[in-house]
Order: sequence, then structure tokens, then C-alpha cells
Amino acid sequence: MGVAPGCGGVGLAPGGLAQRSALPRVARGRGRGGRRREVPHEALERGDHGRRLLGGGRRSDNLELRAPVHHGVQRLSWLAVPDVPVLDHDAVLEAVKPAAAIERVGEAFVAHHLGDWVMPAKVYLPSPGWGDFRAMPARGGGLALLKWITSFPHNPERGLPTVTGVVCLSDAETGEPLMLLDARSVTALRTGAVAAVAARALAREEAERCGIIGCGLHGAWTARSLAAAGYADGICHDPDAGAAERLAAELGWRAGTLPQALACDVVSCVTPGRAVVVEAGDLRPGLHLNMLGADGPGKAEATPAAVASCALFCDEWAQASHGGELTGAIESGLVTREDVTDLGAVLAGGAPGRPGPDAVTLFDSTGLAIQDLAVAAAAHAAWRDGAVEAQTVRL
Amino acid sequence: MGVAPGCGGVGLAPGGLAQRSALPRVARGRGRGGRRREVPHEALERGDHGRRLLGGGRRSDNLELRAPVHHGVQRLSWLAVPDVPVLDHDAVLEAVKPAAAIERVGEAFVAHHLGDWVMPAKVYLPSPGWGDFRAMPARGGGLALLKWITSFPHNPERGLPTVTGVVCLSDAETGEPLMLLDARSVTALRTGAVAAVAARALAREEAERCGIIGCGLHGAWTARSLAAAGYADGICHDPDAGAAERLAAELGWRAGTLPQALACDVVSCVTPGRAVVVEAGDLRPGLHLNMLGADGPGKAEATPAAVASCALFCDEWAQASHGGELTGAIESGLVTREDVTDLGAVLAGGAPGRPGPDAVTLFDSTGLAIQDLAVAAAAHAAWRDGAVEAQTVRL
Repeated sequence: MGVAPGCGGVGLAPGGLAQRSALPRVARGRGRGGRRREVPHEALERGDHGRRLLGGGRRSDNLELRAPVHHGVQRLSWLAVPDVPVLDHDAVLEAVKPAAAIERVGEAFVAHHLGDWVMPAKVYLPSPGWGDFRAMPARGGGLALLKWITSFPHNPERGLPTVTGVVCLSDAETGEPLMLLDARSVTALRTGAVAAVAARALAREEAERCGIIGCGLHGAWTARSLAAAGYADGICHDPDAGAAERLAAELGWRAGTLPQALACDVVSCVTPGRAVVVEAGDLRPGLHLNMLGADGPGKAEATPAAVASCALFCDEWAQASHGGELTGAIESGLVTREDVTDLGAVLAGGAPGRPGPDAVTLFDSTGLAIQDLAVAAAAHAAWRDGAVEAQTVRL
Repeated sequence: MGVAPGCGGVGLAPGGLAQRSALPRVARGRGRGGRRREVPHEALERGDHGRRLLGGGRRSDNLELRAPVHHGVQRLSWLAVPDVPVLDHDAVLEAVKPAAAIERVGEAFVAHHLGDWVMPAKVYLPSPGWGDFRAMPARGGGLALLKWITSFPHNPERGLPTVTGVVCLSDAETGEPLMLLDARSVTALRTGAVAAVAARALAREEAERCGIIGCGLHGAWTARSLAAAGYADGICHDPDAGAAERLAAELGWRAGTLPQALACDVVSCVTPGRAVVVEAGDLRPGLHLNMLGADGPGKAEATPAAVASCALFCDEWAQASHGGELTGAIESGLVTREDVTDLGAVLAGGAPGRPGPDAVTLFDSTGLAIQDLAVAAAAHAAWRDGAVEAQTVRL
């Protein structure tokens, strides 16, 4: 268990507490007065239960002295357990705007390509008949993250969001939780952001107009990110015409048909992946395609033949080849590893991007924990800098 | 992304909201008045921003109407987002006592053996030079769980706990987070509990005295669990004599030497696994050994020869064979799969346990997410039944 006998706690003589509290600790990201509450790790039946407050603390109710919890006689350990700030959906969106998400996500791809940021494979936990859970860890920049997120497609029928979950951002030196965040907002920001990162890297320089196919939650954030990246004109398409019209009105773009959307310079598909929307005949010289909808086995928005006709890029090969847009073309034998370039390699300058102005480029996005880490780190920094308020919980 | 165009939100006509709110939803585990706050999934610039409160709610401040967050014109979705209860370290320990943890953990092993509870492999995320993170998912009993937990052995030098983290308990039908819990307390309870479960299943019926080797956090909880299971006499040993004495005093047991602890009927080793404490010569007929300290590659508390001399049991083969007490003996060629019985099979009646009164039984515990799920579910039930108070956060 990693517990060293005798190191789980320290027996203190009176006065010993004063010395321990004085130990310096780098306040990593704790610019708010270092709210840290000292609590007895195990209660001591005898001796002094007095406690000291570290730092001023903005939420005095969380720092009030509480009676020690008696589990019987055990050593007294003044192991500091901090309050954890929590950002809900709206606070995340207030803390991190699309432009910031684009920048941070791009940096994360480079850092991952260089090996500085690391990411084990995401773990799927199905709930048969209902949906699935995904556990997504990553480490980088002195932080670590775990995003626990869902896809439960029947939920809207019950008035619930398809995607829910929680993100824990942790300190990579101590392992301590630093912040909890709503996962839906983090996911929406980073999904939209990568579409803009890929478009900037791979679309033609003259590209101006965006086509958005699928105007649900993530399609909307894709459109907002592309608008934030400077694409001033676009066509929004959705089988729900109202959804397309509302998104278009928000951005000053237009609603249109599927062919109209496909005729744009940068086309982003953000559909559930249950039906193909791009066929080989839809491809035009100079097109850049962002394929964001297929994020698990069995989903596809383009035919294998269409995929195989493009200059191919992906966020991460293992994910894209097993549960992304590329999977069908790979299984058909039309595409191999050598045909696909990692976006991070392009951004880091280690691999070429668009082959030429007439090429059709396709970026397969399956969603990486490093993207979530980028956005969560940005949100934490914004809170630390006072840009947004957080709730607080004790763990 | 699992988003169906048009299903991420619903355009509502006036009066439409009343109908949507009336949709029945089974209040799974929400016996506290179904605190559910309806928030705009995307803000609508035009139309009615009025909101309805569902349920009474005990924390009215969290249910006060807030101004919608404007992300521009987008459809209005009254997707209900509930407040999430949070149990801190002390609340978990108040909610779940060792006796209850023993019962629930035993049931979880049976359910897992029967295939009703499922558990993907835990994921390790190292933080080189500091420690490691573990992401542990599981599903069962209508619930799902993700425990994000750490082992950072240098932390006590900084006045911090070695083990920290957070647990998210979720609804397996909707994916929604149901509760957040402190991970340290859940882990301590389930680690101690499995020692008692294994002792009850594998030790001799006449076994009376417990030896506890390693009196840190998890050693203490192991001892408490065994005491709760009815073992009235024990010897506590730790290189830190004070730690052993305090634990012994708490339980009415005695502190003693390593040989004295090893001479007991049920011996539980709960050390960091950096040094062997059990050798072949320490084994006596009728002994039952719980090996709880080795929970990752490179750790061992017994020699391979000692391990190979025992009737062997494990919590889960993949974990035990790659990062548990059995690993060294397997790598030495002394032990194979056929030599090891799953504890869940014994508890379910599908495999024999102790071969006879003179056998030496060894149970290798590496720590399973299903154990965490068992304890977290028990804590949630206790909260739902009003046995403990929870904090609340919005996601």
C-alpha cells in the first residue's frame, strides 16, 4: 500500500505542532492564501487537540475547528488536508474561453509529441443497454488529470445530458487533488478547440468558410472555436433545422443544406457517427475535413473510400485506428500507419502537414486526455489568478 | 461524440417546460427530496428564462435562480443537473463501519466472481521521482465507480498523506455522478475489510489470535476489521514501537516482536513491501497469511520460497501475478495459475478454500475497484438513509 510503518503519522509533544506548521511548502497554484486545513489523520484520545489555521482562508466556515473524530486511540498526525476548489459547468466556461482553449490544446499536442506530457490509454467501462463510461488519465506540466466521463445517448429522452462527469486535476509532485471540475464543459471546450487547432495547421491559408455538420453540443463548440480562430463565415447544417439556424444566428453564419456545408473550405463533422455524411464524391481540391464524431468502435461519418482519398492526420494512432474515423479504412486495407501523420508531429514541426493547395486533408479527432488536461490547467490558472470564483469541498 | 443532432437540447414553446418537468424519473438514491436543479444547457437570448425548482431541496442556496450564462444565441435545454453530495474522510468513516465494510466487500467478491460486477484493469500513471496515480473503474449493482488515488511515499516528509484522491460514484443507467467521496477513507476501509473476509474464509475455525505486521494507516484498519470480525486477541508489530503500542492499546491487544506476531493464527502483513518479513521458516501448520503490502511491481513481503510453500489465494489473478505478493514466486517458476485460487470463487462456493487444518494458507491482496465500489455504495446508502450528512457541490 505504500505506507511506511511509522511514517503515516507523527507523535507530537506539545509545541511540536508549532514547528511542523512552520515547515515551508511551495504553494503550487494556491495563490488564494493557501487554504489548507490541518486535521487529525487519526484521533488521539489523550493530549492536545488544538489546531492551527494556515493562511487566511476566504471561506472561514470551512476552516472552523471541528471536534476530532475518534476512531479509538491512534497516533496523532497533523497531515494537512486542503479544501479543494470546484468549478461547475458555467464556471469552467467563464474561466476558459475558446481562444485560450485553442492555444492550450495546441501546446498540449506539441508537449505530448515531445514526450513531456504522457497519457495511458483511455479505459472504457460499458453499461450495456445504457451507454458507457470512460476513464482518461494524463500527466504534464507538473499536473495530472483524471476525467471520468460518459456517453449515454438515451439520456435526452429522460431530460438528462448525454455527456456528464467529473474531472480531478492533481498535483504531480504530491498526488493531491488540486481542483474538481465539471467534465461536460471541459470536454466541449477541448473538442471545439482541436478543430480550430487542426484547421489552422492543415487547412489552406486562404480558407475562409466553415461548414458545420451536426449542430449539437459539440458541433456548437466547434463552430464557436472556429469563429474564435478567425473564420468569419460559415454554413451550419443539422437535420434539426432549428438547431442549425440558432447556431448560425449566434455566430452571424448561415444555415444550409448538407451539400452547402460540404462545399466549404473547412468542414467539421460532429455527428453521432451513426450515419455517413461524407462520401468520396464530396471531396474537392483544397478541402480540410475535421472528423470529430467518431470516438468509439463502430462509429463513422465518412466512407472508407473517402477517408482513403485524403491526406490523413490523427490525434493519436491507437485511438484513431481502433475507434475513430480511420478504423473502417484500416480494416478495409485501404489505409496503414504510414499513411497517417500525428497532429502533434505537424504542430511540433516534425512532420509535414498539408501536401499542397489541392490536397484534401482529413483530421481524425477521437479525444485525448491531454486536451482535457490543457483545459483543466487553464481553468485552474484562471481561478488561481482570481478570474473566476469556485465552490469548495473538503475531502 | 455521441451527440445526436437536435437531441442535445429541445426548443420549447411556452408551456412546454411544464410538460417536460412532469416527466417521471425514478429517484435512484435520491431520498432527500430529489434535489435537482434545472439549468439552461445553452443560454437562449430570446424567450422565457424562467426556471422551475424541482423538489424541495435542503440547501436552498444552491437552488436559487441564477442568471443564464450567455454563450450567444443557442437553443434552450432544460436539462436537469443535480447537486452532487460529497462525503469527506470523516463522513465516510461515520457512514461505513468495519463490520459493514466486511459484509459488503465479501458480497462484492462473490458478485465479481459471478460476472455481475465488472472491473477493467486498473491504470497506473507514474509521476517519476514522486509516486504514482491509479485510476480504478468498476460497475455493479446499478452503480459505477472511478477511484483516482495515489501513492506518494515521500509525502509524509512534507507533512502530507501518502495516499490521497477522490472517488466518483455514478449511476450506471444514466451515467450521472451520484456522489463524490474521499478516496483515503474508502481505501482504508476496504483494505482492512478484505483481510477479515479472507481470514473468515481461509483461516482455521479455531483461529483466535491475530498478528499485525505494519501498524501504519492500513495496518491499523486491518486490525480494526479483524477485531470487528471477532478476533479478540492480537499482537501488533512495527519498527516504530510507539505505533504498535498505540494500535494494541486501542484494541486491547499487545505490542510484540516480529517473531511473536508471526506466531499468531492469522498474520496480516501491511508493510510498504520494501523488505521481506516472512520467510519459509516462519510458516507453521494451520497459519493463515494475509499479504496486503505488495500492491505494485517490485514489492514483496515474503520470499518466493515461502509463497510457494502455501496454499495460495488471490483477489484477482492479473493483478496478483504482475504486481502482487505472488509475482516473485511466479517469475521464479515456483508458482503457476493452477496453484492459485480466486477468493471470490471460494466465497461463492465454487472452489475449495483451506485444504486442511495443517495447511498454510496465503491470501494475496492487491486491491480491487470492486472493493471500493462496495464501500462507496454502502456510504451512499447510509447518506441516503440519513445516517450521515454530506456537503454538496454543483457540477
